[in-house]
Amino acid sequence: MQSDTLARQLNFLREIDRLKTVMRQSPLLDKSRKENSAEHSWHLAMYALVLSDYASGPVNTHRVIQMLLLHDIVEIDVGDIPIHGAAGQELQAEKESQAAARLFGLLPQPQGDQFLGLWQEFEQAETEDAKFAKALDRFQPLLINVFTDGGTWTESGVSLEQVFSRYGPAIKRGAPRLWAECEKWVTRHFSADAARPEASD
Amino acid sequence: MQSDTLARQLNFLREIDRLKTVMRQSPLLDKSRKENSAEHSWHLAMYALVLSDYASGPVNTHRVIQMLLLHDIVEIDVGDIPIHGAAGQELQAEKESQAAARLFGLLPQPQGDQFLGLWQEFEQAETEDAKFAKALDRFQPLLINVFTDGGTWTESGVSLEQVFSRYGPAIKRGAPRLWAECEKWVTRHFSADAARPEASD
Repeated sequence: MQSDTLARQLNFLREIDRLKTVMRQSPLLDKSRKENSAEHSWHLAMYALVLSDYASGPVNTHRVIQMLLLHDIVEIDVGDIPIHGAAGQELQAEKESQAAARLFGLLPQPQGDQFLGLWQEFEQAETEDAKFAKALDRFQPLLINVFTDGGTWTESGVSLEQVFSRYGPAIKRGAPRLWAECEKWVTRHFSADAARPEASD
Repeated sequence: MQSDTLARQLNFLREIDRLKTVMRQSPLLDKSRKENSAEHSWHLAMYALVLSDYASGPVNTHRVIQMLLLHDIVEIDVGDIPIHGAAGQELQAEKESQAAARLFGLLPQPQGDQFLGLWQEFEQAETEDAKFAKALDRFQPLLINVFTDGGTWTESGVSLEQVFSRYGPAIKRGAPRLWAECEKWVTRHFSADAARPEASD
């Protein structure tokens, strides 16, 4: 039984190697290529470790980090859904639930249910820990876009109003001080954008 | 001051984006490309989360995960040093210390010193948390080699004895139950290798 427990855990750890091949829309900051979901998850865990003082409420950083390490594992089955796309969100949520059941179901119990519970808590974004984790998951790609001259906003023709509506609520709710910084960046970014000759007519 | 604190933290988070471009010797399990140090760090944090019951002593999983998230950040300045290379270890350790001082020095205090302390604890591998973290940092690439028909062992002509001496002590010390599994895998791997026609003469 002990041996079967370890075998299942190692099988899960091998399976999630595939998150390294799931590509996101966001570029690396040096623009050399797109980011993948495994390295994005590492970076978000570092954001949580560095920025936990900016959470809107009291958070348990260990739980926030666990959520962020786990949050994209479902993408192994369903891929990354761009924030600036027009996918059917209900169908997507159903597919992600199935993926979570399959992937966390590879683990022995009670570990599988613990991980599934953390993933569901993140998705529901009601607890303080989950609200902060969700805020960081929106903050990191916003920062990338600001520091890569527009990134996915330029690619997808996204407006200042769309940035405010797609990123603002989650960041403001979970990390208001970080949103104040975002507002400055975004306003400056779109002002500079409007001032460019090719965008001025 | 508050604003300067956040500016320094965000500057650090931007700087460590570069860990995504530091390439390791180990391949992904699907052999499509080599692994980078950021996604390796994510995977190791997941190993710690899943396998903490196999630590040789009582560990604080939150601290183990923090060490593993941070442990390779020095490679931004000095690169990844292959386990099967012949680099001057003292010179390398000195370079890594300088890199740690520079990179964690980007953060405000006391956060910078806290991260530096965790990195030093990992390097010294004396505490229970650090011994387990070090064991996982050896276990993960060993697992990759076993499940990719030899991986870097085949590339570098590494023998069974070299695998035992280069991976064994750290894994056995921090996670003896995992080493027992490794011994089976490695023995089987090299037996199968020896049985192949091209290696039998």
